[in-house]
Amino acid sequence: HISKLPNIETTIFTVMSQLAAQENAINLSQGFPNFPSDPKLIELVQQALRENYNQYAPMPGALILREAIAEKMELLYQRDYNPATEITVTAGATQAIFTIISAFVRPTDEVIIFTPAYDCYAPAVEVHGGKVIPIQLKGKEFSVDWNEVRSKITTKTKLLIINTPHNPSGTVLSKADMLELSSILENTNIILLSDEVYEHIIFDGAQHQSAALYPKLAERAFITASFGKTFHNTGWKMGYCVAPKALMHEFKKVHQFNVFSVNHPMQIGIGKYLKNPKNYLGLPAFFQRKRDYFLNEIKDSRFTWKPSQGTYFQVLSYENITDEFDTEFAKRLTREYKIASIPLSVFNTNKEDHKLLRFCFAKTEETLAQAAKILNRI
Amino acid sequence: HISKLPNIETTIFTVMSQLAAQENAINLSQGFPNFPSDPKLIELVQQALRENYNQYAPMPGALILREAIAEKMELLYQRDYNPATEITVTAGATQAIFTIISAFVRPTDEVIIFTPAYDCYAPAVEVHGGKVIPIQLKGKEFSVDWNEVRSKITTKTKLLIINTPHNPSGTVLSKADMLELSSILENTNIILLSDEVYEHIIFDGAQHQSAALYPKLAERAFITASFGKTFHNTGWKMGYCVAPKALMHEFKKVHQFNVFSVNHPMQIGIGKYLKNPKNYLGLPAFFQRKRDYFLNEIKDSRFTWKPSQGTYFQVLSYENITDEFDTEFAKRLTREYKIASIPLSVFNTNKEDHKLLRFCFAKTEETLAQAAKILNRI
Ligand SMILES: CSCCC(=O)C(=O)O
Ligand SMILES: CSCCC(=O)C(=O)O
Repeated sequence: HISKLPNIETTIFTVMSQLAAQENAINLSQGFPNFPSDPKLIELVQQALRENYNQYAPMPGALILREAIAEKMELLYQRDYNPATEITVTAGATQAIFTIISAFVRPTDEVIIFTPAYDCYAPAVEVHGGKVIPIQLKGKEFSVDWNEVRSKITTKTKLLIINTPHNPSGTVLSKADMLELSSILENTNIILLSDEVYEHIIFDGAQHQSAALYPKLAERAFITASFGKTFHNTGWKMGYCVAPKALMHEFKKVHQFNVFSVNHPMQIGIGKYLKNPKNYLGLPAFFQRKRDYFLNEIKDSRFTWKPSQGTYFQVLSYENITDEFDTEFAKRLTREYKIASIPLSVFNTNKEDHKLLRFCFAKTEETLAQAAKILNRI
Repeated sequence: HISKLPNIETTIFTVMSQLAAQENAINLSQGFPNFPSDPKLIELVQQALRENYNQYAPMPGALILREAIAEKMELLYQRDYNPATEITVTAGATQAIFTIISAFVRPTDEVIIFTPAYDCYAPAVEVHGGKVIPIQLKGKEFSVDWNEVRSKITTKTKLLIINTPHNPSGTVLSKADMLELSSILENTNIILLSDEVYEHIIFDGAQHQSAALYPKLAERAFITASFGKTFHNTGWKMGYCVAPKALMHEFKKVHQFNVFSVNHPMQIGIGKYLKNPKNYLGLPAFFQRKRDYFLNEIKDSRFTWKPSQGTYFQVLSYENITDEFDTEFAKRLTREYKIASIPLSVFNTNKEDHKLLRFCFAKTEETLAQAAKILNRI
């Protein structure tokens, strides 16, 4: 059989986590916390299991969870989403993203993505016969050249994907960016996919620029979000998306035949937990302490950086250390120095290397201290 | 936006379950048990939650669960599947099916399905631009006309989907069927998708005809299976698929960007539970008692039937009662008699009606008795 995805290999996250395990290295590659989720949340899920929420959840999600999501969107972004028609719970944000692409992208349709880009977007487009139109983020700020965006839009552009806070770079879009985007998309039929899985992890007092805050974006936008990132349990694979009714209607047609519905006891537990805004409002401060701690610990290393503005990732430049290609260097650090990271070149369509590695700081201070000690030796 | 699936509506399972809830009717429509899952299994999942299996599982699944699946396939079907390369855990069998189709079906490829067919196959093919080639099962036995199958195979046939025990009809394929299929597929490149989610629910001493039992089928087959059906927890959305390495390699390329991985604590709990064959070997007898109880209770009704051979569904003919169209009759029974079922016409490509309704008997005796009382009045 000729492969539909001949150039796709095992995702870098699996590759690096496996190498880290094999080399007994500190794993700052794949993004997941190494501290426990709130015992209160774990108890809520256990309670749902014992109370026998063990049969199919409703196809778009348990009502209590959809309602809690609507309340959160209202509280944070002052936008109403109707739980009955505009919210669907998904098996992680990745399943939401894949399903959106499946529901809308046809052969020869174009999808604009900004590179370096999280690695699930392009293959999802390609497996549906669509064409990825990559736009490289510029310079050390990873900024968007909006004129370039304008020039790349054609009558075939079906979807444009943004991601703020941005994985892997740790940068965020500004209000000015969102207004530019708004004016570019106005009077087009382009659907916006706004991947906001790190919405609660943003630093230095900045305000997360959700597409939900901009009426002219929200009217055409799917927003995807992740409970795994928010509540420190990436292994539960729980997420959701919101969109205006007409778009969500098409999404559900595919969702119901992709997964039908999502783990029920987890939905009940998370629904109850999400009702209390205290359970997420402290996240920016929580992760900022980790970022600051980590950067302070490596301040005398030979790496250089701009501090992460959001996400739980810090990009470090090793241009003062070696000119090895980043995939080679990341593997060598894992083998020789016992610290695993993610090389950024894999997220560029042309695999261009800028001597950058991404480190996950969603770790205990103890782990971050150990990691810093190693980085200071390199 | 022009819909990619203009003719697709909300799945019949959601429609009938919602109507049942609204009408306060006994819900024998959507297939799920109304008795609890084994408390031992629920405790194993709780334990995994407390032991902090809360971050990403490995992409193809937790090793303990993949190993338990391999042991089960060896025990029941004497076939070796390598946990490292030939088994992937999925968010329910539906996600496995959708992902298989996504990984292999290209525009204009043909996919043969037998109708009445479970409702996720055709839309998954269509959303990838493939063409569904339906073959109607024949008569009250829902038997396959293998000569018709031979005549419908073309150079474009990419995939052929079988489902035994068969939902919605409750019939099973025989050894002779499997040998016919084997000879038909020999010397073709056609991939077989064998949907075996009811493998453990088969009656009257019959042996489940897994594709794994037939080397010439297994070498080209994805077999999909469901823990929800097997362990009475459809709401956990846990399943898996097995296939030879080369096929599974292509599957994983899409799986990793559809869901990446599957709920980790559930995998650990199920993995431990599945290790003990006692936890599934009693299922045929368990469900046969339910079938026999139900059919005995309605023996004086005006419905007619052939006893279900497998699945937890019983098809009843109402040809002696009315000539209403089955979707109308199913809705009227829900509203007026307070009993919900699934009309079979929705599973036929041409929506042809044969005066048949499907009733789920994965229910307590109490519920089955109440349902029978109603059916005896109709
Ligand atoms: C799906 S594994 C990757 C986790 C993650 O979001 C990341 O490391 O960027
Ligand atoms: C995914 S809801 C349908 C459940 C089921 O398998 C059935 O009722 O046939």
